[in-house]
Amino acid sequence: MPERIAERLRALEDREAIRDLIARYGPLADAGDAEAVAALWSEDGSYAVGGMGEACGRAAIAALISGPLHQSLLTDGCAHVLTSPAIDLDGDSALARCHSVVLRHDDGEWIPVRASANRWLLRRGPDGWRVLRRENALLNGSAAARALLS
Amino acid sequence: MPERIAERLRALEDREAIRDLIARYGPLADAGDAEAVAALWSEDGSYAVGGMGEACGRAAIAALISGPLHQSLLTDGCAHVLTSPAIDLDGDSALARCHSVVLRHDDGEWIPVRASANRWLLRRGPDGWRVLRRENALLNGSAAARALLS
Amino acid sequence: MPERIAERLRALEDREAIRDLIARYGPLADAGDAEAVAALWSEDGSYAVGGMGEACGRAAIAALISGPLHQSLLTDGCAHVLTSPAIDLDGDSALARCHSVVLRHDDGEWIPVRASANRWLLRRGPDGWRVLRRENALLNGSAAARALLS
Repeated sequence: MPERIAERLRALEDREAIRDLIARYGPLADAGDAEAVAALWSEDGSYAVGGMGEACGRAAIAALISGPLHQSLLTDGCAHVLTSPAIDLDGDSALARCHSVVLRHDDGEWIPVRASANRWLLRRGPDGWRVLRRENALLNGSAAARALLS
Repeated sequence: MPERIAERLRALEDREAIRDLIARYGPLADAGDAEAVAALWSEDGSYAVGGMGEACGRAAIAALISGPLHQSLLTDGCAHVLTSPAIDLDGDSALARCHSVVLRHDDGEWIPVRASANRWLLRRGPDGWRVLRRENALLNGSAAARALLS
Repeated sequence: MPERIAERLRALEDREAIRDLIARYGPLADAGDAEAVAALWSEDGSYAVGGMGEACGRAAIAALISGPLHQSLLTDGCAHVLTSPAIDLDGDSALARCHSVVLRHDDGEWIPVRASANRWLLRRGPDGWRVLRRENALLNGSAAARALLS
């Protein structure tokens, strides 16, 4: 296989794999599948949730899903809506940026209770692409959220 | 063409075609184009809409768009917003999962009147990929919606 | 490289580039990066914003971001959420359709203050794909918005 074709195919596959990985977060979070959410991250991965501290490692990330705040959202009904990310690929690492909106069910309507900026650092490992670090910040006028998006 | 390259290209094209098919639903629904919406499904396709029964076949799916409920949404102004799906490809079949949110215009604001889980079963036919079955369930705390996403 | 493989790779890369270009708009708009937003368009590009006239050329497009309306949104906190587009590729031109929703922060909630139809005309130039024209219309029941989506 000519090297140039292999490179181009690989780049497309990498971008596809990263987009797919990020697309799995919302459905798995709303299914309440804590282990599957955590498995999107690498073993040493972390998730800094705007306004709620940082979860380091898969057990801590799973605990965000199995914890009382997320379980209360699931009981009411919720949608974790993420946009398709802009991806900067750099060999075995990548940076992706997107929005996330959390809608909470309330009496036949769904209220957007969070709208956030997200910056994902991703890494290719032996089992494919995983999230190394996700940073999330509320789009409430803060400089922190704006900094994640540029 | 080496077989391995052909396989990899085909997998990328399949995922692209499926994503594109699903991306067409929202714009066509909000354009009110009943025939074009129905043509996203196979002839024997079905759409089970959370809380509203199941439409079997293209004529029944078109009738969802031309019917009074959807027409009333169009008159007020609406946005059928779908997220980019997580796709599991398996030869000539595929499974995709995503969210959908329906926003209804009301006096200069848009109210999220539905937020749903969606599970799409897709099949490759002689004319390319089509939807064989779409299941939709409101994310209102029900087990049904959560089951579609995991 | 066999010509047919080259064509198929090129089509996938084109669609990926167009999706990525559109995915950059929301994050850059919410970062307030007027120059980077404008650089998504070609030098002679234009952006017709529903209800707000048309910006022609990069300087005018940048002024939409640096102007008082957008700056007021940034101060309150906002999310410009775009859906993954349906793309029709035709050589060095392409047409894409998607939704956009603007959420405005207000006291711990985010209100959808705009939901729009978007039709993007894109062109491949010496520096890759750029937006030649984006048309946006509010999904408030108007025929204009529906026409952009079909």
